[in-house]
Amino acid sequence: MTKDTDRYKNSIKLFKRAAKVIPQGIYGHLTPVIVAPLASPYYVEKTKGCKYWDVDGNEYIDYMCSYGPMVLGYNHPEVDKAAEEQKKKADICNHPGEIMVELAEHINKLIPIADWVVFGKNGADMTNHSLMIARHHTKRKKIIMAKGAYHGTAPWASGPGHAGVIDEDVQNLVFVTWGDLNEFNEAVEKYKGEIAGTILTPYHHPTWANQVMPPKGYWQGVRKTCDEEGIILILDDIRAGFRLNLQGSHELFGFKPDISCYCKAIANGYALSAMVGTEKMRISASSVFYTGSYWLSAVPMAASLATLKILKRDNVVEKIKKMGELLKAGLEEMAQAHDLEVEVTGPPATQFMTFKDRGDFRNSQLFSVEAIKRGVFFHPHHNWFVSAAHERADIEKSINVADEAFKEVRRVFGPSE
Amino acid sequence: MTKDTDRYKNSIKLFKRAAKVIPQGIYGHLTPVIVAPLASPYYVEKTKGCKYWDVDGNEYIDYMCSYGPMVLGYNHPEVDKAAEEQKKKADICNHPGEIMVELAEHINKLIPIADWVVFGKNGADMTNHSLMIARHHTKRKKIIMAKGAYHGTAPWASGPGHAGVIDEDVQNLVFVTWGDLNEFNEAVEKYKGEIAGTILTPYHHPTWANQVMPPKGYWQGVRKTCDEEGIILILDDIRAGFRLNLQGSHELFGFKPDISCYCKAIANGYALSAMVGTEKMRISASSVFYTGSYWLSAVPMAASLATLKILKRDNVVEKIKKMGELLKAGLEEMAQAHDLEVEVTGPPATQFMTFKDRGDFRNSQLFSVEAIKRGVFFHPHHNWFVSAAHERADIEKSINVADEAFKEVRRVFGPSE
Repeated sequence: MTKDTDRYKNSIKLFKRAAKVIPQGIYGHLTPVIVAPLASPYYVEKTKGCKYWDVDGNEYIDYMCSYGPMVLGYNHPEVDKAAEEQKKKADICNHPGEIMVELAEHINKLIPIADWVVFGKNGADMTNHSLMIARHHTKRKKIIMAKGAYHGTAPWASGPGHAGVIDEDVQNLVFVTWGDLNEFNEAVEKYKGEIAGTILTPYHHPTWANQVMPPKGYWQGVRKTCDEEGIILILDDIRAGFRLNLQGSHELFGFKPDISCYCKAIANGYALSAMVGTEKMRISASSVFYTGSYWLSAVPMAASLATLKILKRDNVVEKIKKMGELLKAGLEEMAQAHDLEVEVTGPPATQFMTFKDRGDFRNSQLFSVEAIKRGVFFHPHHNWFVSAAHERADIEKSINVADEAFKEVRRVFGPSE
Repeated sequence: MTKDTDRYKNSIKLFKRAAKVIPQGIYGHLTPVIVAPLASPYYVEKTKGCKYWDVDGNEYIDYMCSYGPMVLGYNHPEVDKAAEEQKKKADICNHPGEIMVELAEHINKLIPIADWVVFGKNGADMTNHSLMIARHHTKRKKIIMAKGAYHGTAPWASGPGHAGVIDEDVQNLVFVTWGDLNEFNEAVEKYKGEIAGTILTPYHHPTWANQVMPPKGYWQGVRKTCDEEGIILILDDIRAGFRLNLQGSHELFGFKPDISCYCKAIANGYALSAMVGTEKMRISASSVFYTGSYWLSAVPMAASLATLKILKRDNVVEKIKKMGELLKAGLEEMAQAHDLEVEVTGPPATQFMTFKDRGDFRNSQLFSVEAIKRGVFFHPHHNWFVSAAHERADIEKSINVADEAFKEVRRVFGPSE
């Protein structure tokens, strides 16, 4: 096997150039520093299906799917064709295209709670807008959110203590433990009549931690309290939406939010986000001014309509669940064979694996580095994604690579205690 | 001439469907209500060059250019080709493409103040991020901004009194009159040591008002005060950037901001925004966490690099200035011929026309409606944009249409007093 610095020669060369002209070289959640420095590709050359090739020509089976957006496979011919056909006519203009109405009608039909829909570019466009709508609707200020949850990089979403955040940005946030109904109810009691809304993900998917599925009765309890206290229940379904249930992840967990935010899988990588809401929220949603330079562009909407239709036609939710279960079973089996205890948490389609016996993620990092080196991209700190392009052979190959990566983890850190 | 309701039959039909599934049918700055209800197209079918066709087949010479992004002409073959070539390889992935480094290097070379650059999707991604950087850099809270300026739809940018905005969102904003150096200095004096930054547009381009060019010495005075008081000078060049001066609009007005925000014309309609900054801001820019689902996508970056190169090669800034001057002269002449006094304000490439003698914009609205009906899209309340695709013949045709529209204004409202 080649040295890592040889393997990522072009990536490193490009990164050195980037570091001069871009703060951190690559910023945000894609910064290589938090993946595996010098032991991970930094730049992509080509994508196709469930695979990509970095600028050094290395090939990967991808379990990050661009951190979510890729759900049908990269460069999906049907989605790209729909986008191209629209592009030939019109994309951005002074007005939206007919496609905006078609897509809105499609989504309103697809998602049972949806009485209306709006579109934007970033997931954060939606989470920000949802808070404004909830505040306008209730004439209250406070928002309950979960510790360790991610809702974007706006000051309020970054949370207290982050660079650039001032006290006023966060002083109306109330933090609770995701999944703890008692804590939620206590927060509501403590700020009785002051809570405008709560923004929560359908299940808890923090980075650097196991994923948490909703305890029995949690969502029904949250819904009941919100109803009783006039609190707007906002679902942040940005990461999980269209992967767990085409009708919205809340359908899987048996509750109905007032507003739900989508992005990621909605258009297979074309820049689009969306928010749906119930009839009672329509007037408030109309009252909060809401726009952006490219928000009504037609091409991503055409891509989205094609994506949503294919997701249904090909029964993708079922498929990625099955493939995810296959991966999970294989990982658990291989880990055990090396006397390593792992936990695979979260829904199979968006699972995450941690090692049970260490808290510092060094074994996770080594596992990822060794897998990446062998052509399978597993992230050490962030949940993974399975796409419709992952076939049984890809999963089996990935499990075999995991076997070798586990072997290295066992060699370096020893068996689990 | 057909009745308006016949002329926009398909637009109205679509809008009725949209009103059921989208709050306001069409939201934000594109809502038809603020343009010319029932007397304007609502949906686009096809775009090409400086023209577009609505869903009823009506043709328009476009002076809104999608509210800015279209600068080279719709469906520009060279820009689209660059985008397609990149798309065939990779767009979104777990990593950026080499194009991100190339584009960053190009922009850093193009814009003299730029020592670094970051990219996002919305203009507002940049204005929001710039405030966080300024606050982190100075460890201060307050931001000076201009009354009537637009910096996006974030709560702080929406400003006090808007739906969904709470006091805490705006309590650290200090509002001054754009172009009034004394007022600026008084605000700095009043909150001495508390001002983190100021965010201002290069010239003042409010809606529903004349545009204001910088008084002599204004920018030099602002810069001097910022230097003396350790205030970060943020330029919101989102609307004017790459139209007035390729090196940044500040070069036209002879000053240097610490940070400048771009969007609109940067990629001829592909979803991209950018921020550049000076060396002193680099560490702070690196410290504020900053990301979004589609921010490192390669296709809009390829489109941007092509756009910026063509802007330079074809000397577009010079051309649109000339065409803008031609339009301005024609409008003034035609208005005078009908005994109407108009003011055409702002830079020629982004000019805006108002009628001198009314404050309610009803004559502006009638003028726009009559022009739109005759195939020229002039906005009654928002500044206009000229693109490289507007040729002399288009301008001349537009002036002839303006002649007829002025005639109608004169007929309905009488001559200016």
